[in-house]
Parts: sequence; C-alpha cells; structure tokens
Amino acid sequence: MPTRLKDIANALDVSIVTVSKVLRGKTDVSAETRDRILRKMEELNYKPNMIARGLASGRSLTVGLVVPDIADPFFAELARSLGAHLRRSQYQLLLASADESPAVEQHEIENLLQRGVDALLIASCQTDPASLNSALARSTPCVLLDRALPGSNANFVGTDDVLAGRLATEHLLSLKRTRIAHIGSEGTSTANDRLLGYREALAHRGIPADPALTLACDLHSGRPDLLGYNAMRRLLERPEHPDAVFCYSDLLAVGAIRAAREFGRRVPEDIAIIGCGNLPISAYLEVPLSSMDQGTAELGEHASSLALQLIGSKTRSKPRSVLISPRVVVRASTGLPRA
Amino acid sequence: MPTRLKDIANALDVSIVTVSKVLRGKTDVSAETRDRILRKMEELNYKPNMIARGLASGRSLTVGLVVPDIADPFFAELARSLGAHLRRSQYQLLLASADESPAVEQHEIENLLQRGVDALLIASCQTDPASLNSALARSTPCVLLDRALPGSNANFVGTDDVLAGRLATEHLLSLKRTRIAHIGSEGTSTANDRLLGYREALAHRGIPADPALTLACDLHSGRPDLLGYNAMRRLLERPEHPDAVFCYSDLLAVGAIRAAREFGRRVPEDIAIIGCGNLPISAYLEVPLSSMDQGTAELGEHASSLALQLIGSKTRSKPRSVLISPRVVVRASTGLPRA
Repeated sequence: MPTRLKDIANALDVSIVTVSKVLRGKTDVSAETRDRILRKMEELNYKPNMIARGLASGRSLTVGLVVPDIADPFFAELARSLGAHLRRSQYQLLLASADESPAVEQHEIENLLQRGVDALLIASCQTDPASLNSALARSTPCVLLDRALPGSNANFVGTDDVLAGRLATEHLLSLKRTRIAHIGSEGTSTANDRLLGYREALAHRGIPADPALTLACDLHSGRPDLLGYNAMRRLLERPEHPDAVFCYSDLLAVGAIRAAREFGRRVPEDIAIIGCGNLPISAYLEVPLSSMDQGTAELGEHASSLALQLIGSKTRSKPRSVLISPRVVVRASTGLPRA
Repeated sequence: MPTRLKDIANALDVSIVTVSKVLRGKTDVSAETRDRILRKMEELNYKPNMIARGLASGRSLTVGLVVPDIADPFFAELARSLGAHLRRSQYQLLLASADESPAVEQHEIENLLQRGVDALLIASCQTDPASLNSALARSTPCVLLDRALPGSNANFVGTDDVLAGRLATEHLLSLKRTRIAHIGSEGTSTANDRLLGYREALAHRGIPADPALTLACDLHSGRPDLLGYNAMRRLLERPEHPDAVFCYSDLLAVGAIRAAREFGRRVPEDIAIIGCGNLPISAYLEVPLSSMDQGTAELGEHASSLALQLIGSKTRSKPRSVLISPRVVVRASTGLPRA
C-alpha cells in the first residue's frame, strides 16, 4: 500500500497539518522538523501526487529562472543550488538562458510566465530598468537575482558587489601594488558596483583612478576567457603597465593570466590577478586563481526562500532586498606580498 | 508602423509563405535563404507575436531539455548550443536539471510535459530503460540526448562513446603506455560504452584488461573533481601503478591530475592522463588536459534539427539515431611519447 501523509505524521508523532505544510513549502515549520519529515518521506518512499496537488492549489509548484548565460559556471552553480533548495519544498525549477541578450531575455520571461510558473527569478542582462516593468507588474511574484536594476523597486537577492570590488582591490593594495587595473564589464549593476568598489578602495588610499587602467568588456561579444585575454593584452601594450588586476569574473581572469604569461610576466610576482565568482575549477588552473567568493550556495538558498515566501503570501508585500557579503579567497595568483 | 511579414518578403523578393516557413521553423527552406530572412527580420526589427502564433498553431514554440546536472559544464555548453539553434527557428528552450537522480528526472520530465513543450530532449541518468517508457509513449516527441537507453527504441542524438573510449586508449597506447587505467562512471550508456571502447583498444593490442585498473565513480555521490581525486589515490595506493589513465570526464581528470601530483608523480612523464568532453577550461589547467572532443556544438545542432523535424512531422516516424564521432585533442597531460 502506498505511504500516506498520515503514516508519516504517525511515525514522527507530528500533526498531518505539519507534514502537509512541509509538502506545500510553507516556511512556518522549523528546519529541524522539516528535515525529519523529509527524511521520513524518503525512508517510507512517499510519493506525493504533484500534479493533483498543483491543480488543487491552483499552483504549478514550479519556479522559473532566467539567467544571462547558462554556460557561465557561476550561473550554472547558482541554478543548481536554487534547484536543490526548491526541491526540498517540493518545488521544481525551470530554467531559461538569455545568451546575454536583452531581447532574448524578454522572450524567455514571457515564455516562463506563459508556462504558469508560480514565481520568477531573473538574473537580468537588461541595462534599462523599464524593460522589466511589464514582467514586474504581473501578478506572478518576481525576484531579481545577482543583477539589480536601480530604481526598479523589485525584490532582490544578490552579492554586495561594491564590497566585492572594494575587498578585491584592498587585497591587491595590501600586497603593495600601486598600479591596479580593472578588467570589467558594462551596463549591469554587478559591473557598475564592482567598478565603484574598486574606485572607492583606491580613493580611500588617495590613489587617483587612472582611466587607462580600466577596461570594460562586452560579455555578449565572445567567450569570456578570450575577452579577458584581449583586455590584458591591451593593458600590457600600453607604456605604463599595471602591477595588479581585479577582473570582473574568474573566466576573464583566466584569459588575463594567459595573456600576462605570454607577455613574459610572472603571475603573481610581476602582476597579481584576482577574479570574482570563485568557481570550483579556480583551484586547478595553471596559476590557481584568487577570487571573490560570492556565496553561490547562500544566494540560491536566500532566493529560494524569498520566492517561496512570496508565493505563500496572500498580499503583495513591500519589496525585500537581501545582500550577501563576499569574501576574498587567496590562491597563488595573488600570493604573498612583495618585499 | 510595425514591420509585417509582407515587408520582409518584399524587401527580399521572396514569397510570404517562405518567410512564414522560416518563422515556423520549417526545414524545407535553404539555409542561405533562412539566414537572409532572419537577418532582414533583425534589420527591420520585426517582432512576431509569438504567443498568438503559438495559440493559433496549437504549439508552445518551446522545447524542453532535462540534463543530469546543469552545473556540469558539458551539459551547460550543450544547453547553450541547443538554445542558440532553436532560437534561429523561433523556438525557445526550457531547461531542467535532475541532479543525477533518476527520481528527480522523472518529476522534471513530467513537469515539462505538463508545461506543454512541443518536444522533449532528455539526457537521462536512468539506468533502467523502462523508467522512460511512460515519457516515450506520450504524444509529445522525445529525443534521447548524449545518454542512450539500450532497447528503448527512441530517437537518439549522441557521441559514439565506444569510439571515444577506443580513441582515447589508442592515444595512450601510442605513447608506449602499457598499464592503462580507466576511471569511469556507472550505469549509463556513456559509461558502459566508453569502458567498452577502452577494453576493445586493449584487446586489439593483446593486452588483458586488468580489473584492478578499472574504477567506477558514482557521479551522484559528490563533486566530480573530488571523485576523480579519490579514485586516483586508490589507484596509486595499489602495488602496481598505472602509467596512464583514461577518465570518463574532464572534471574527473582534473581531480586525478591533482592526486597524481600530490603523490609526487609527474604528469605526463610518470602518468599520462586524458579526459572526455573537452571543456573550454581544459586548456587553462595546472596541466593542460588532453581530452576527447564530443562536438558539443554539433550535438546541439543535430538535436535541435531532429526535435524540430519531429514537431513538424504529421505522423510518428521510425526512431532515428545520430552518432557523432569524437576526436582526440592532445595537450600537455599526455604530451609526447616516452623514449
């Protein structure tokens, strides 16, 4: 005989209501109780009839996620973390990738809303907040993820990117580097904020930001490793070279290291390089890469909780913003301070 | 005034029917004409009313894809390639990830079918063909991707994995290695076929396959780099070490290289290591990794064409199978033959 909700409640001496709450992704059950119930469901091989439940509740038990580029390991990791957290509340994740194109992103958003997702998470590549207005005005709850849209007044879960830029640059300053370059991106809040943090850290030390040391890559225009490679070549072809670089992403940094070495520069002795994103592969590179860890797993967890809360709340509540603090992870590409 | 189909047809001196065919993803228009039409649509900023078109045709203009793990860069790249190809025919891709769990995969398949996708692509982590029978029996066309299910009689697009195993092992044999190990996976067609190819190559040279040199990792049990690391440690702790290893994936190989170096073995001098998948990052690793290129872009293109053909065909046709030939990409981790 198939396991029923009642069997799980009896086995754990909790109420059927509590078991049902866990199934429906309600958040007013303690984490400990929820974990006990989920373990017992697995043990007793409980199979909820998802479709019947979805129909009965008028919900699809599905959350949509649009990312700028699914082949960017940062977003792939974020999607994995999100999916795992949602699954614990019996929700499923449907993913779409915008290939860094604002037009494609709008199509994908529309499509996910059409497919009846209960909430939509958007890591947007729009540069104009207005483009998202129609999505944000819909009755389906939306959360912006990773990339904020200033002035959009939307729910947001992301990294404190100003802090990421500041900490990365302060780390390079602590290594007695004085000509610190930034290989950045353009248009998005993450790009703007990391650049701002970089400038703040320099200003705090009384170092004027040299425009010749700041480059912005158009991430839509090619593979990030090749963009980073080309950006570093441009920096090295100029008369005054940088002695350190903060890169907007790990993949840009990977290409930057390759270019520096081809130019005969030692990393980190001649040029210290730090990325952002702390990809799992960063420890295995030709020069293991220092990076800003953005807490990808934590991002996924917060975004999933917020989405479930919004789905569960009967009224439209005031937009919430969750900012996660990044931290520096030091590896060989920045190494030890120079004598 | 918004651009109409007629404007595009007039501008290119083609019929409205041809333009409409391109929009509907029909395949009986030459690639050249299709490209001209798509370029003109972009130039004239033509915005088809996707939703109206979908409703009118009874289609969602959406193809679903279930992958075993979206954070595995091979599947993320494959998803990107697929999405780009589908988009050229005005189709959208919706993605779900199964986290290498057969139970989760079944949920995700059901969910995508519920959301009304026009076709479903499945890179399955099932080990039992029967588990997919209910999906394959539905009226929505299905294509198995990358991982075949022997005996399932389904449409399939993937790599010739026996050939991948054979070519990788032959490459190691050509470097005069005699104790060649295989760090594999288990249960899937890709795992079985690569192991088979490995054994065929050894048998062809009259070398008996030593069971002590074959390990299978459970990919569901942890991060692949750590699984590869542990597998390599186990191989090195045995009295007779391998002098070469063919790894089921690049990420397993990344961990295997790390373990070999920690054991004081030089790669490739003491141990030559080759992976499979040829990830873009492979060229940037501590030891640039030789790998079997599976033609990810080509896989995506074939899978997208087949899905669109199946959607467009009025009758259920005989299942088709597309096998793509892999090729060896040699980098430093296998290097030059030993003297």
